Amino acid sequence: MLARDLVVPCPTVGLDTGGLEATRVLAESELPGLVVVDEKGLPYTVLPHHQVLRFLVPDYLLEDPSLARVYGEVASDELSRELSRHRVRDVLPERAPEIPVLEGDDTSVEIATAMARIHTPLVAVVENRALIGAVTAASLLERLIGQ
Amino acid sequence: MLARDLVVPCPTVGLDTGGLEATRVLAESELPGLVVVDEKGLPYTVLPHHQVLRFLVPDYLLEDPSLARVYGEVASDELSRELSRHRVRDVLPERAPEIPVLEGDDTSVEIATAMARIHTPLVAVVENRALIGAVTAASLLERLIGQ
Repeated sequence: MLARDLVVPCPTVGLDTGGLEATRVLAESELPGLVVVDEKGLPYTVLPHHQVLRFLVPDYLLEDPSLARVYGEVASDELSRELSRHRVRDVLPERAPEIPVLEGDDTSVEIATAMARIHTPLVAVVENRALIGAVTAASLLERLIGQ
Repeated sequence: MLARDLVVPCPTVGLDTGGLEATRVLAESELPGLVVVDEKGLPYTVLPHHQVLRFLVPDYLLEDPSLARVYGEVASDELSRELSRHRVRDVLPERAPEIPVLEGDDTSVEIATAMARIHTPLVAVVENRALIGAVTAASLLERLIGQ
């Protein structure tokens, strides 16, 4: 079972895609993360949902979550404004993480190892220097246990 | 929008549930993680898919992923044996992480903050000292942007 046998199509966003658009793309995809590509269309990183939520959570709440309680509810239009202020590159982790990208002929063991190491629910798969799709940890797990 | 309005039912496993059963429960749930409960049935932690994949990946592959290539494919029955050797408590992170548990009256901002801080795709929700379900980061994001 190779990566190319497990891929599903995945939408992509660029480093300069706006936060609101990126969030919508992720929500519509039903995948557990968003593949971010560079200028050449090659995978740069994967943003899981919790990372995309960073678009919406001000830094001071991350530092002192007790303030989240007094923050109260936010209105949808306020959120949309907040999202529109950010671009994808604004929520990437500061240090370049190990890139969750595999090759089409990588084995299921290699995919599982990468997911467990990088703590990612999704990896991008390239073949002949082009993105061919993504593999979810959920589908890998299902296939591995034969469901 | 409060946590209790966002919960979906979630299956649970215990700390001593076997790896094979835990993996099957997760695969059947279609949730992005598995709620692990303690002896009292209260949430202990949440295991996302990549953490459950730890059941299947030997430690030495995590340390040197280049070995994953020569490891080759594994047979289903071999995997089942490997899974059966482990219990849930064997794949928990060594240090106790912040527990991904919220209260029914926590707001969407509190949930988003917790998910972004803990890097979790799923939080358990308790009310009156009982588990009432779980909230996924995906559904929170969809609701926040009004989809």
